[in-house]
Amino acid sequence: MLRLPAVVVNFKLYRQASGKNAVELAKKIDYVAKETGASVAIAVNPLDFHFVKDSVEIPVYLQHVDAVDFGARTGRINVEIAKEHGVDGILVNHSERRLKIADIEYLVSRARKVGVDTMVCTNNPSVSAAVAALGPDYIAMEPPELIGGDISVSKARPEAITETINAVKSIKEIPVLVGAGVKNGEDVRRAVELGAKGVLVASGITKARDPKAALMDLISGLM
Amino acid sequence: MLRLPAVVVNFKLYRQASGKNAVELAKKIDYVAKETGASVAIAVNPLDFHFVKDSVEIPVYLQHVDAVDFGARTGRINVEIAKEHGVDGILVNHSERRLKIADIEYLVSRARKVGVDTMVCTNNPSVSAAVAALGPDYIAMEPPELIGGDISVSKARPEAITETINAVKSIKEIPVLVGAGVKNGEDVRRAVELGAKGVLVASGITKARDPKAALMDLISGLM
Amino acid sequence: MLRLPAVVVNFKLYRQASGKNAVELAKKIDYVAKETGASVAIAVNPLDFHFVKDSVEIPVYLQHVDAVDFGARTGRINVEIAKEHGVDGILVNHSERRLKIADIEYLVSRARKVGVDTMVCTNNPSVSAAVAALGPDYIAMEPPELIGGDISVSKARPEAITETINAVKSIKEIPVLVGAGVKNGEDVRRAVELGAKGVLVASGITKARDPKAALMDLISGLM
Amino acid sequence: MLRLPAVVVNFKLYRQASGKNAVELAKKIDYVAKETGASVAIAVNPLDFHFVKDSVEIPVYLQHVDAVDFGARTGRINVEIAKEHGVDGILVNHSERRLKIADIEYLVSRARKVGVDTMVCTNNPSVSAAVAALGPDYIAMEPPELIGGDISVSKARPEAITETINAVKSIKEIPVLVGAGVKNGEDVRRAVELGAKGVLVASGITKARDPKAALMDLISGLM
Repeated sequence: MLRLPAVVVNFKLYRQASGKNAVELAKKIDYVAKETGASVAIAVNPLDFHFVKDSVEIPVYLQHVDAVDFGARTGRINVEIAKEHGVDGILVNHSERRLKIADIEYLVSRARKVGVDTMVCTNNPSVSAAVAALGPDYIAMEPPELIGGDISVSKARPEAITETINAVKSIKEIPVLVGAGVKNGEDVRRAVELGAKGVLVASGITKARDPKAALMDLISGLM
Repeated sequence: MLRLPAVVVNFKLYRQASGKNAVELAKKIDYVAKETGASVAIAVNPLDFHFVKDSVEIPVYLQHVDAVDFGARTGRINVEIAKEHGVDGILVNHSERRLKIADIEYLVSRARKVGVDTMVCTNNPSVSAAVAALGPDYIAMEPPELIGGDISVSKARPEAITETINAVKSIKEIPVLVGAGVKNGEDVRRAVELGAKGVLVASGITKARDPKAALMDLISGLM
Repeated sequence: MLRLPAVVVNFKLYRQASGKNAVELAKKIDYVAKETGASVAIAVNPLDFHFVKDSVEIPVYLQHVDAVDFGARTGRINVEIAKEHGVDGILVNHSERRLKIADIEYLVSRARKVGVDTMVCTNNPSVSAAVAALGPDYIAMEPPELIGGDISVSKARPEAITETINAVKSIKEIPVLVGAGVKNGEDVRRAVELGAKGVLVASGITKARDPKAALMDLISGLM
Repeated sequence: MLRLPAVVVNFKLYRQASGKNAVELAKKIDYVAKETGASVAIAVNPLDFHFVKDSVEIPVYLQHVDAVDFGARTGRINVEIAKEHGVDGILVNHSERRLKIADIEYLVSRARKVGVDTMVCTNNPSVSAAVAALGPDYIAMEPPELIGGDISVSKARPEAITETINAVKSIKEIPVLVGAGVKNGEDVRRAVELGAKGVLVASGITKARDPKAALMDLISGLM
């Protein structure tokens, strides 16, 4: 389980955060996490997983795992095999990899059983409430129209953060992180003040000229 | 809105329930509904919709509508156009047409706005609770492994019915129908006794030698 | 079968070309087709199909049909039921509704059997050659990056038209239409001069202030 | 490139062929390949890739790679990152992971560019001809109804093998492997006699009590 509040960095399939670049970026993030004592995790692709995992001490998530059992499932990986490989957690239902509701339920339930954390991404308060009923470890709400953009959810849609936290709380006590356009400490501070337990970021770190400095700034908002 | 308890007959794409056969079958079902005074609705495909709708007085649902707005969406229909055509309701997330959670939320929210009923299909108690948070008009729980089979959910999985009703009630008061393998009045009676507000059936009626008699039998279980 | 060269108007799910608007637009197109003697067809959604088909004499296509047989296929329509309803042809694999290769082969083969025309959409010369091997009635090549835009394929990518026609011819003699950004008679004329047997258009007609005038202009390029 | 004829073993997500079991099985296969001098390759999942690749000398394929460029593509891997990791080849369009035709074309074209082999799976002669036009390194035809079954394609559908080889040859000279139900040397011998350049197998090896013996038997049919 992540210490909260936390910063989760999604490496996506950015060139700057894939292959050897993934390992280098992960080391920088690991360094900052140690220096600051902040809780930081990263989410990588399955080919990069081992090189990254072997290079850092922070938790390493996978960006996606399929909702399938073992068997004749060419081209799939599942929660059980992720666990065997030492995966700490999984992102589920990211806006770039939306899942069927039955598959989200399957993944959350299986991951809980084998001991892999689940962070389920959602797009609004209503979907967040629905996901809360499934009982994942974390919910990460990101308004899709702000993802990858220049204005953060904290500034553009603070009411979406508040409504999500209330909607989730009305169903079950699950920590809510937020994301989309999060770029600096001020964005993080506002989110945390509104009740968020952390942020999910991507381009703000992966495409930063100086990822260490960018992460330092983000972390300053956690305090 | 459907009077409850209700029987909803999903025509699927069974040959016996498509094209001209859909109209004939719909008329038989309409006749039985009138004779018995029971609440019965049917779900058809969009090509058959008008011929069926013009032939009966019972509510006619579509089996699926896409979660899209108007625009450059080749090969899609949406809730707004369904409403303009006089559609009474839509099945959402049937096990043979599973949807992403964000799309279920979109459909339920849009359908409510324009005045089209939504019956969201689910596969177990946990997913039913999640869907309840989205606020559809009805939830229809069907264990996938029993769909199209010979043993009804009422006999094979009575506890799944009870747990679903309780799980939904813990989130929001939404009527729960059940389905999968429902073939006769006894199956319906057990479901209703367990708290279900009706049944979702398909092959039990569409493939029956005598659909009128089969429906009569089913309806006997509603009383 | 369409007389060639032809203009095919894809109504998509544009508000201006759905529901009652679909019928009105179809009548205008039908009128222009009769006045000019040009070969024009339209592609509509399945809910609108009957109202449109009953209002015009030009061929009416569906924008999509699923690659399934009769049976337990909730939310699907197939080629056989489309035929029973009097559908003249189907668009297959439109860029907004891409299909698996096995499904394209299934649809082309089934449609040929029951007597429904198939126009398979493609995105470049290489995919067009592959589709040619499946033997559809028509291939409609549209560079995805130009669809819905202001510059036509004829102007922006004339070499893509020539290469597609050659690539298809090297496999099988199948008429090639082109589309993407086609707005006026000049766009059509260039396409036809390059060897195209017609054009696939959408917003150029559906969103035109005066669809009759816009179609008249397009048709002028066919001669 | 594989020496032909070849045996390609798809590990799928069988428990017996995932995680540590994948490494053990790969070593056995590697051993038999060396002992016999036969050309054998294996296809694994991306989490297992490195442990397997580091343990053997035979070519190691991935079972699936996504048809995407670098960028904001959470939960995806692409051909370029596969190449950086030392992947020898990729299975494309396996029956358990069917792809859109535009994505097959993209993958074949990108893989050729970066130097990763592509083996595109198909389901019948017609689809094989279409795929041949895309120019992959290998085509592996598997009748879906026989996959995982007890009767091999060589015995149940020899004419499908012959027709596929002829259909492909009529478009382009691409080696054709076959699969589905292949269990022993006799199955392989028949396939090779009919013109196949090898076989794609899965459960015949992965679920065999003695994989080494099973592979030995298969290989005997290559000679």
